[in-house]
Order: sequence, then C-alpha cells, then structure tokens
Amino acid sequence: MKQFGIGLVGCGTVGGGVWRNLNAKREVIASRTGVEFDIRRVAVRDVSRHGDIPADRLFTNWREVVHDSRVEIVVELMGGTSTALEVTRAALEAGKPVVTANKALLAEHGQALATLADTKGLPLYFEASVAGGIPIIKVLREGLRANAIRSIHGIINGTCNYILTRMSEQKESFDTVLADAKRLGYAEADESLDVDGIDAAHKAAVLASLAYGFWITADQVYVEGIRGVTDLDTRMASKLGYTIKLLGIIRQHSCTGVEVRVHPTLIPSNHVLASVGGVFNAIAVDGDIVGRTLFYGRGAGADATSSAVLSDICEAGMDLACKRRPVSASGHNLYGKLLTMDEVVTRRYVRLTVLDTPGVLGQVASIFGSYNIGISSVFQPEEHEGESLPLIMLLDPAKESVFRQASAQVSALEVVKAAPTVLRMEDFS
Amino acid sequence: MKQFGIGLVGCGTVGGGVWRNLNAKREVIASRTGVEFDIRRVAVRDVSRHGDIPADRLFTNWREVVHDSRVEIVVELMGGTSTALEVTRAALEAGKPVVTANKALLAEHGQALATLADTKGLPLYFEASVAGGIPIIKVLREGLRANAIRSIHGIINGTCNYILTRMSEQKESFDTVLADAKRLGYAEADESLDVDGIDAAHKAAVLASLAYGFWITADQVYVEGIRGVTDLDTRMASKLGYTIKLLGIIRQHSCTGVEVRVHPTLIPSNHVLASVGGVFNAIAVDGDIVGRTLFYGRGAGADATSSAVLSDICEAGMDLACKRRPVSASGHNLYGKLLTMDEVVTRRYVRLTVLDTPGVLGQVASIFGSYNIGISSVFQPEEHEGESLPLIMLLDPAKESVFRQASAQVSALEVVKAAPTVLRMEDFS
Repeated sequence: MKQFGIGLVGCGTVGGGVWRNLNAKREVIASRTGVEFDIRRVAVRDVSRHGDIPADRLFTNWREVVHDSRVEIVVELMGGTSTALEVTRAALEAGKPVVTANKALLAEHGQALATLADTKGLPLYFEASVAGGIPIIKVLREGLRANAIRSIHGIINGTCNYILTRMSEQKESFDTVLADAKRLGYAEADESLDVDGIDAAHKAAVLASLAYGFWITADQVYVEGIRGVTDLDTRMASKLGYTIKLLGIIRQHSCTGVEVRVHPTLIPSNHVLASVGGVFNAIAVDGDIVGRTLFYGRGAGADATSSAVLSDICEAGMDLACKRRPVSASGHNLYGKLLTMDEVVTRRYVRLTVLDTPGVLGQVASIFGSYNIGISSVFQPEEHEGESLPLIMLLDPAKESVFRQASAQVSALEVVKAAPTVLRMEDFS
Repeated sequence: MKQFGIGLVGCGTVGGGVWRNLNAKREVIASRTGVEFDIRRVAVRDVSRHGDIPADRLFTNWREVVHDSRVEIVVELMGGTSTALEVTRAALEAGKPVVTANKALLAEHGQALATLADTKGLPLYFEASVAGGIPIIKVLREGLRANAIRSIHGIINGTCNYILTRMSEQKESFDTVLADAKRLGYAEADESLDVDGIDAAHKAAVLASLAYGFWITADQVYVEGIRGVTDLDTRMASKLGYTIKLLGIIRQHSCTGVEVRVHPTLIPSNHVLASVGGVFNAIAVDGDIVGRTLFYGRGAGADATSSAVLSDICEAGMDLACKRRPVSASGHNLYGKLLTMDEVVTRRYVRLTVLDTPGVLGQVASIFGSYNIGISSVFQPEEHEGESLPLIMLLDPAKESVFRQASAQVSALEVVKAAPTVLRMEDFS
C-alpha cells in the first residue's frame, strides 16, 4: 500500500480536527482509498499548546514543513492571505499538491495560485473552503460535471443564519441574538467578518469562479450584511409568506454576464432553503441538465470542516498514486464577465417609516409608478411608533439603478421619517 | 486530448437523454475533463425508433456494442436484471469499465459484479442508480470518505413522494392522486414497483451496501409501500406536527448490526426532509465526523438521470486516461450484518377504528401498557363513520416483535372494528 506524508500548516480549530480525525480514521481511510497517510510535520505558532502532537513533528517555521522531503502533500489551514499565500506558493513551487480550506486566500489570489498549479501540473484542492462539511466543490466540479450552472443560491454563513433564524422564530432583536451567539461561540468576538457578509462574499467568489470558469475576486462581489435587518422585518416577511436569509446569489444571464451578490434576501417560506435553520448551511444549485438540486450540512466547526479536508487529502493521495493529470484549476475555458450590481433586476421588500397621515401611500406609490415600478403587495401593521408607523411594500422586478433613483425620491418625502429598509427578494422562478 | 469510445446498451428514456446531452455538451465536457467522448455504438430493441442516431451506430445485438474494439466504456441503461447482467458481465470480462443506472441489477447481483470488477481491476460506476441527478454515490464514496455513516434517511421514490405530497397538501385520496399521477406520467401504468416500495428498496440496498461495505440484496430489505396510507392519516399526522413520507431508512447500531427498511414514516414537519415535495428526492446522511447533511434534487427523468450518467462517463474516461487503480467495489472491508426487522425499535403512529362507546381508550391503553409500551399522545377527531370513529395514538419506542403481539391483541378487541393502520415514526434524534 502506498504511503504519503502530510505537512499541516496551521493547527487551530480545523487543523486540530484534521490531526485528530485523520489519526482516528487511519484504517477506514486506507481501506477506502488504498493509500495510507501520515501527518509528518505540523507548523504551529506555539509548540507548547499542542500536547497531543509528538514534539518532534512540531515546527514554528512553516518552511520546515513545506520543504521537508517526507512531506508530499501540503495542507494549509492557517487562514489569512499573506503567509498563507507564501505557503501555498512555496508548496506548489516545490511540486507538492496543496489542500486548503482558505476561502479568503482563494477569493483574493485564486487566479494566481491556479495558474501556478497549472504550470506545475499540480492539482489544488479546496473542498473545505466553502460550506464546511458539504462536499459542494466536488459536486460542482464532478457530480454535475456536464451541467452549465444556471444559478446558485447559498446560505453560506452559519453565524448569520443562526441570528436570522432566532430573530425570525423567537422574535428577538439582532443585538440580543448577536450577544447570545457570541456567548455560545457561534459568532467571533469581532463579528464583522460574518455579520457584514464578508465571509459569505469570499465563499460566493469561490463558488462563482468554479461554476463559471473564470476567477472572481471577493471585491467584485456586491455585499450587504444583516445588520440592517430588524425583528420587525423578519416578522413582516413571515406574515407575507417569506423568510429572510443571508444568501450568496450567483446567476448566469446568457448574454450579459454573471451576477454575484451577497445580501439578506426574502425567499418564499415554502422553499427548501427557508427550512434551513440555525448554524446550518445549504446551497441550491440549478444545472441545465440536472435541474434543481440542494446540498445541506454544517458549514463550520472542527469536525465538519475536517471531514472536507480529509476527503481532499484522500483525493490528493489517490491522484498522486496514479499520477492523475489534474484538470486545470484556472478555469474550464468558459470565460465570462461579471454583471455590475446596477444591472441586476430583483423584486424588493421595502419598509418605510411614515407619518400617520392620509395620502402617504399615494405619494409613495406615485413615485414608484413614475419609475414604472409596480407594487405587488402593501401591508401596514397596527404598530405605531409615536407619530410614525411602518409601511411595507413588495415591489415588482426593477433594475438596481432605477430603483435607487426611485428610492432616493421616496426617502426625500416629508412624510417618510427614516431611511427605507430595502431587502431584495428571490422567487427561484 | 485522449478520446474514448462509448457503447450504449439500451436507449430508452435515460439512454436517449445521455445521447442528446453528451452530444450537446461535448465541448464543455472536454474542457472540464481533458478527455473527449464519442458514443460509437448503441444497442436498441428497434432501430427504426431512433432516427436521431446515425443508422451505422445502431445495433439490435448488444454483443456488437460491448465487443466492438472501438468501444472502451460500456454504459448499461437497458434495465432489468437478466440481459443487463449478461451485458455487464461481458463488458467486465472484456476488460471494459461499466457505467450503469440499474439499481435492480445492483440490488440483486451487486456482490457478484463487484467481485468480478475487482478481479479484473476495473471500476464500476453507478451514480445514476440512486436518486437520479443527486450525486449521492459520489458524496458517500468520496465527499464523506473518512466518515462512518451513522444513518441515512432517503426520500428515494419520486412517485410516492408526489402522491403523499398531494394527499397531504390537497387532502385528496390515494386513488385520486394515483390516477392523476399516471395521467401526468409520474407513475407507470403498473404502479406497483413504485407504490409498493420495491424501487425504493433497490435503492436503499445500494446505499446501504455502499455505506457499510457489504452487499445487501433487495430481498433483505424490509418493505412496506404507501397503499395503506389514507388522506385521514396525512391529515391527522399534520395536526400532530408530522408529515408522512416514504423513507428508505438505513442505520447502524454499533454492536447489533445495520437496519435497512423502506416504509411510510411520520417525520417532524419542521425537519428539512418534510419540506421535500412533489417528485423530488432527498437523502439525509449522518456521518460521524461531518454530522447531518442532506442532498436534494430530481430523482428521475431523462435529463436528471443522464446528468449522473454523464458524470460517471467523465469519471470513467479520466480514470482510464491515468489508469487510476479503482478502489474495490466489493466493499471496504467493514463487513457487517443486517438487523432483522423484529429487532428494530421505533415510535409508532397507530390509527384504530373503534366503536363510539365509553371505555375503549382504557381497553386499548391497558393492552399496550401490559407490553410496556407507553402512549405519548392520543387524539380523537370528531369524524364519525357510522357507529365508528378514528382513534389515533402515538406510541413510545417499542421493538417490532413486541409491538406486533400487542397490536394483535388490540385488533382482537370487540370494540376495534378494522385492522389498525400502523406507521412508524422517525425523530432524527
């Protein structure tokens, strides 16, 4: 049986899970792959904090891991984009395949790394970079191989989904739930990476790149986080038959390009994605042959993520064993272009805070009407706040650029007392 | 670029889809795999019915396809288990990898075919045999490779799911919906393969074999179809917070064995599986590292199924190109044993038709009590049928063998007017 040496760079939550699970599953992995793996060197920040790993395998200098001749596969789990880039580059330069869980790295330097991998004739594995334990990269790359991807809708940030689920089910405020999420370890002390949609944007960039064969960077992804969503919105959405989720949305328009965006979104409450609660992730993929599919599981955590890393390690070993020629990581030649957000057409949920006087609806409706934006539903709950009250409208599809103008005009009305809350809608039609 | 010749044996619904989609996707497939495919020979029953395929590629004798030297990969899509077995055997004997969508063949002859494939050092691909377009075989074999599978719960028959969804949502009777399903092409003229759970049992056998590494045949799977489910049951279940689905249930008990069963099942209405409606399939997999996952999509149809066949063809070509040594198809050495149905413990929904006289509940409850089976919920709707009325109970977990005795005694009561409807429950705990 072939044996391959693994070099682990980074041994935090995920790295620790990989160490533990790979050792626990040695036998199962060997019998299922025909290959044995041994983690021979591990790069860590502080060797004193890894008592479970034999001291002679621990190094503080990653170069001693990557360049060790007994390390044949490099697994980068350190996070960040500067040293991680150096590590990945060095490994590929040294002719070693790389397994990474680093979505930020891919969303920033994916193209450069893929090109380097191609030049070296090496594969790049990144199953764990998106949606933790869900094998979505394998599904897109292999399971749906012959499909052109029409769209992807993903709940790809567990923290946001936990917060929105609790706001919606328990009618609690964003701040209350966020505080709880931090206490429970579902949110970081600095919540911004999750709550502001940045993490989801990294993952959306990776998924879009994979689906459309050209590398999209995170800064090309339109992002809105969930701070602007109130429990009033989750309640009103529910009354109207919708559920609010932070979605990564990727969709191809045959002529104009690909849209890639991350924002809180109203989806029909009877859609499968709406039933994805708590910290779980789910990704709906619409392929032109297969039709609608959906993949669900834990998106984070030591175990779920290490399940994905182990799958990649197995793949890397089996590929090495047969010297399988990797499919180009830098694209499958279906180059495309991104659609700017201005061009994106969606339906919208708009919540206005308006004065409780007659004629308000008329004024607002006339403005939307003058931009040719129809109103498909209006709802005014009996929830006064002093002299103001909420007015909720569901608008017909409109281009982002057109809606912004209309919205600015509505905001400027004297009867409108606060900046409107605008949430986009998806009907999966 | 390497080129491989495909021989298609069988060209009905799925075969037609494969012919059409493989030709339409030639370019995409080549760019994503580095391999080109050409369907060089096609075995059909009647050459006159395949005008879209060049006449010189059509043959009525499958041997002319399998044994043609320009055919390097054999794709078996004829169905059935006698000729299909001959075809698959002949292809493997001739040293050619086989792609099959034939769950019945695998559920009957899986072990023999896998052993033959192993002997020949050949891979056997069967992504399309379970759940159509959902790449569940790849997920189990590769995506969750390091996981021990704790359980699988699958909605793996679209016809049954369509019928149960409509019964539940539209409060229609089984017969009405079945007639409609036939009209719409969701059910065959002879519905028994689907409605009696046989098709689902084939798929459950394949999934269980894959998950536990020993081949399980369809006749070892406990099967109940959905003919016994009435719209009264779907309504009562809904009132109690449950949804009825035909599930394939596969679960490992660490010491005693693996249970594999197919039957209508009450699941909590807030579970993701409950939101899987219509002809869609979904498979929930609980792995010991990854935790709970779920995979959803179309389980049948020319396109969805051919998406899976094409993924396998790509895999076969890429494996051939690098002469990748296949992982044994005949098991990953985790041999296990099956649990008999008698030993299976479940909660149960029991609907009795009882006389409308005092003391009935007491008599029934005493019997269950004497077998140590607790009653967790009782519900008696105001729906009289002459002198009788329905009495619904949710029972605490009990072993099948014990429950059967209790149930026989309850049925024998004078106040019980018809054979009880018994549906098992799953709580996913």
